[in-house]
Amino acid sequence: MDILPLGVWLDLLGTYVFGISGALLAVRRGLDIFGIAVLSVAAGLAGGMIRDMLLGATPPTALAEPRYLLTALAAAGTAFFGHRLVERLSKPVMMLDALGLGFFAVSGCRKALALELDPLPAILLGVLTAVGGGAVRDLLVAEPPRVLREEIYALAAMIGAAIVVVGAQAGLSDSAVAGTAVAAVFAIRVISVRFGWRAPRARGT
Amino acid sequence: MDILPLGVWLDLLGTYVFGISGALLAVRRGLDIFGIAVLSVAAGLAGGMIRDMLLGATPPTALAEPRYLLTALAAAGTAFFGHRLVERLSKPVMMLDALGLGFFAVSGCRKALALELDPLPAILLGVLTAVGGGAVRDLLVAEPPRVLREEIYALAAMIGAAIVVVGAQAGLSDSAVAGTAVAAVFAIRVISVRFGWRAPRARGT
Amino acid sequence: MDILPLGVWLDLLGTYVFGISGALLAVRRGLDIFGIAVLSVAAGLAGGMIRDMLLGATPPTALAEPRYLLTALAAAGTAFFGHRLVERLSKPVMMLDALGLGFFAVSGCRKALALELDPLPAILLGVLTAVGGGAVRDLLVAEPPRVLREEIYALAAMIGAAIVVVGAQAGLSDSAVAGTAVAAVFAIRVISVRFGWRAPRARGT
Repeated sequence: MDILPLGVWLDLLGTYVFGISGALLAVRRGLDIFGIAVLSVAAGLAGGMIRDMLLGATPPTALAEPRYLLTALAAAGTAFFGHRLVERLSKPVMMLDALGLGFFAVSGCRKALALELDPLPAILLGVLTAVGGGAVRDLLVAEPPRVLREEIYALAAMIGAAIVVVGAQAGLSDSAVAGTAVAAVFAIRVISVRFGWRAPRARGT
Repeated sequence: MDILPLGVWLDLLGTYVFGISGALLAVRRGLDIFGIAVLSVAAGLAGGMIRDMLLGATPPTALAEPRYLLTALAAAGTAFFGHRLVERLSKPVMMLDALGLGFFAVSGCRKALALELDPLPAILLGVLTAVGGGAVRDLLVAEPPRVLREEIYALAAMIGAAIVVVGAQAGLSDSAVAGTAVAAVFAIRVISVRFGWRAPRARGT
Repeated sequence: MDILPLGVWLDLLGTYVFGISGALLAVRRGLDIFGIAVLSVAAGLAGGMIRDMLLGATPPTALAEPRYLLTALAAAGTAFFGHRLVERLSKPVMMLDALGLGFFAVSGCRKALALELDPLPAILLGVLTAVGGGAVRDLLVAEPPRVLREEIYALAAMIGAAIVVVGAQAGLSDSAVAGTAVAAVFAIRVISVRFGWRAPRARGT
């Protein structure tokens, strides 16, 4: 078995967990097996495809390498056959979504830095990669995307991407920085939901 | 008159029939002539534009060559002046949509193979090209895209793209393979609607 | 201070006014500060990103140069702290939207001509750039995009882009043509709303 580089692992894990979040949403909406596969592929691959189109890295890796599509389809299969098991975890879509948010924020930011974008745009690209798949998933079932409905969502992705930028400039170990950033995104997101943290709203509305 | 290559014909026909499907939807929603043109252009050109952006073949042919835009506008005109005639055909939007699905599934897959993508990603690109225009059309009028609501939709596009891949590997005639694939997509889609075929859903939901 | 080229000014002004329109919409929906920032960035940057992805000019300037992101965030800040002031202007989102429509129609068309697209596709790209940001903004809050709901919207962008094409072919001064085109888009859009101009609808619907 090949040892895959870190970036590929982040992408494949993000694809799998976002894929499951899309597939579970499809199961709850009573969609058939093909609708489940479509939503799984959309949630799992759209973020990376948007990232690669924005970077001009075409065709996107999600398209050029079959393992991404197979991973998204495996996620669809997992949810199709095992959704009752997965649902027993509390708030499973939210937790998987938080994990995918972390994987993709880190992978998007890393790829942007590798192509020599400046720190601020690299953070923006990380956020876009992270929220893109979920936004497409939610739009396809005509729900307002979670990135707008939820308390601390884009912010969590932004902090993860910022950790990657700071870690890269400090010359720290790639895998340690990536792990820390994914954990930070996941923790911030889950804790903010658990405690109902709310960000400030504009006054007088 | 030039003899256009097969791929261009597939694209123009797909643009025209998807364009009419978009324009008819706009007419039904009571949109004005510009709304009709916007929805016609969106439905007719978005699938090919997504395909070309994913392949890095920019600017997309739909933008680089005026005949695509003119074809979509001709579709808008057809629907604006002739919608009562077109509506007399039973379920006209569904039938045109099925035909456009076939044209774009085949054109997307062929273009991906020409740019040397692997078979599996080429099939995925065919499906994305085929469902992209319709998804944008439906999202613009705030409907859940047909690709998720309907029984056998992405599957029909997938089978058409798979026929193109198998035909190309078997070295069969391009036009025979393309014609067979378009006919297969159309037949599978229309028959599935006619008989109300339903794909399996996850148990216990 | 550098003297920025005309195209950059058009883009930055379009980003700022569309950014404010997105942020005001977010304030009205009661979104928190991060939702406001997301909608501001989406409305302000999506049109230009779509333009650059279609032209293959990647990474998009909105991503490569931090000033675009900072401009969109400044728009979010303006709306967050000053929304009561901005709202006192009558129909502020509509007027800002009309201005952004003009800036982006002109900038999209100019960039397409600079990359030697034909006149008709250049006009289409101008329209796509102009309506793209607003469409993404409206889709994110699950509203049907203004481009379909409103009377004279895509048409106003089209006329502005056409003025750019004609002016370029006549060899007129860049800044005079751009100013005229932006003013024309703004005037057509605002007057059409003021007087309730309606374009023709298909008969017998």
